[in-house]
Amino acid sequence: MTATVLGSGAWGTTFAAVLADAGCEVRLWGRNPDVAADISSTRRNTAYLPDIELPAGLTATTDAAQALAGAQLVVVAIPSQSARATLAPLREHLADGVVAVSLMKGVELSTDRRMSEVVAEVWGLPLDRVAVVSGPNLAREIAEHQPTATVVSSSNEDTARFVAAACSSSYFRPYTNSDVVGVELCGAVKNVIALAVGIAQGRGFGYNTTATVITRGLVEITRLGLALGADAETFSGLAGMGDLVATCTSPLSRNHTLGKHIGTGMSLDQAIAATGGTAEGVKSCRSVLELAQKVGVDMPITAGVVAVLHEGMPVDDMARGLLSRPQKSEGVTSGR
Amino acid sequence: MTATVLGSGAWGTTFAAVLADAGCEVRLWGRNPDVAADISSTRRNTAYLPDIELPAGLTATTDAAQALAGAQLVVVAIPSQSARATLAPLREHLADGVVAVSLMKGVELSTDRRMSEVVAEVWGLPLDRVAVVSGPNLAREIAEHQPTATVVSSSNEDTARFVAAACSSSYFRPYTNSDVVGVELCGAVKNVIALAVGIAQGRGFGYNTTATVITRGLVEITRLGLALGADAETFSGLAGMGDLVATCTSPLSRNHTLGKHIGTGMSLDQAIAATGGTAEGVKSCRSVLELAQKVGVDMPITAGVVAVLHEGMPVDDMARGLLSRPQKSEGVTSGR
Repeated sequence: MTATVLGSGAWGTTFAAVLADAGCEVRLWGRNPDVAADISSTRRNTAYLPDIELPAGLTATTDAAQALAGAQLVVVAIPSQSARATLAPLREHLADGVVAVSLMKGVELSTDRRMSEVVAEVWGLPLDRVAVVSGPNLAREIAEHQPTATVVSSSNEDTARFVAAACSSSYFRPYTNSDVVGVELCGAVKNVIALAVGIAQGRGFGYNTTATVITRGLVEITRLGLALGADAETFSGLAGMGDLVATCTSPLSRNHTLGKHIGTGMSLDQAIAATGGTAEGVKSCRSVLELAQKVGVDMPITAGVVAVLHEGMPVDDMARGLLSRPQKSEGVTSGR
Repeated sequence: MTATVLGSGAWGTTFAAVLADAGCEVRLWGRNPDVAADISSTRRNTAYLPDIELPAGLTATTDAAQALAGAQLVVVAIPSQSARATLAPLREHLADGVVAVSLMKGVELSTDRRMSEVVAEVWGLPLDRVAVVSGPNLAREIAEHQPTATVVSSSNEDTARFVAAACSSSYFRPYTNSDVVGVELCGAVKNVIALAVGIAQGRGFGYNTTATVITRGLVEITRLGLALGADAETFSGLAGMGDLVATCTSPLSRNHTLGKHIGTGMSLDQAIAATGGTAEGVKSCRSVLELAQKVGVDMPITAGVVAVLHEGMPVDDMARGLLSRPQKSEGVTSGR
């Protein structure tokens, strides 16, 4: 099968390598001619994945028409907030009957659209020919062929199976799922919970607190998802719990790192400077909380993150506030 | 309220301190006179919790009659496999109407009874006056007053609420739950999954693999639980996911440590020697797998652990076996 990956960053390049290892003929498109030349001449993407030798069967180009010609599968791995502008001019090069896959996380802030919706809209594709891939998928580890599982989600089961078959290899195991809303929601809200975990760890708390924040964080993501029509099993799966655990326990996550700086007592501006830039959850926590309030769902950890980052609440007051809530029974539904 | 804790190890002593901080008058009973004397004279349990100052309102004794006289709440934190023999002679000292709480993990190997069943049976108590406490509860961190949440489970809601009220404090937040089977199953099977995570990490795999094994491990625990009549929400809660994440990510777990040694290529005997003794999951993985086979539930990670520990399967074959299973959809029910 011929597949094209748009975006030659760490995740796009890694997913291109996965597809090539799974037997596809893969073209990787990116705007940066140095990266494309590097991949074509040395089979490496030195800027994003140093020391990784990319498989044969993967070529790189900056020419979109050439990259997309005849591709049956097109995978999008570009920055979320610029996706609409980047993808629009590529539409004319798409082959008929193409299936599109979004690897992007988050929502488009200007429209509140999920990234699969952005892809479908800008390319005029029906949603049943769009899939998303999400899971505990740190790019670097997959590029090293560490055994990894993921979720391929599409409203159309055949589309999900088609994508899963295209990327399945000895080290990469896809599971199919039909709950696109749930999968994309997990990908967006996990960053807020990773901030909360970072804050707790920066404050000096250990494994109990980390595990508690992750667990109760997943409960509140699940509650929001159920209110929006998602399927509960998605949240206990690889795109939910799996990605959340990987993101919250790996030191590689920017949200986690920025949260840690906040936990040590830095202001938001200081923490952003120390992290070398902002993190996705800093922006999205307010949108998530607004959405939760609109549908009447209680998200105390998210509310705590918003209060600490944006309203000047001291970290200790956040911890105290979470622990002093009334005693109650556990569970997704009973916690409403 | 007057509460007695049986067992002056790290977890028993810590839970006694939690009860005292929550306002109970607490007597801690243990067999070791040195530990009791240490606690009474210095307010420390130097052997198990060095550097922790225990609260006032906690006294220690080796005299069971004195410890149990008039206690409304009796908490059991002694080694699981000797519980029956230790508890039987104490029955005569129990006050009428007492509520018993088990902090013990695992099952009694000789009878396959859960620990709450052992307590009820040996003391002649109805199950509705027995509760269990389980969650992401590393004793050392709770003793340091780090914010921690837990689950108090009893078939009787009033009993669960009574115990939750008795132990609720500024740093310890109990949630009630009525699914005792699910809570105790999580406590037993998490050790098998911690072994699997340790094996993967010892083999050199990172965050993706760890998160995947934890997530798919919880799926197979949940499947087993549902077959045994437990409630799905327990498994995504603090006693399920919470305890599993804490156990699998903390370097303090013996199962995790022993698994790591196996992952580096040691034999089981070498790994036990390097860990300084065996770990709970080494024994229980076979019982869990037998139980799963009896009720017709697929537990591939548990089966892999059994094969590696007890049947000489190489670690790489376990990884390959898990990844080469047929493609399928995610989820608890669909994975059967």
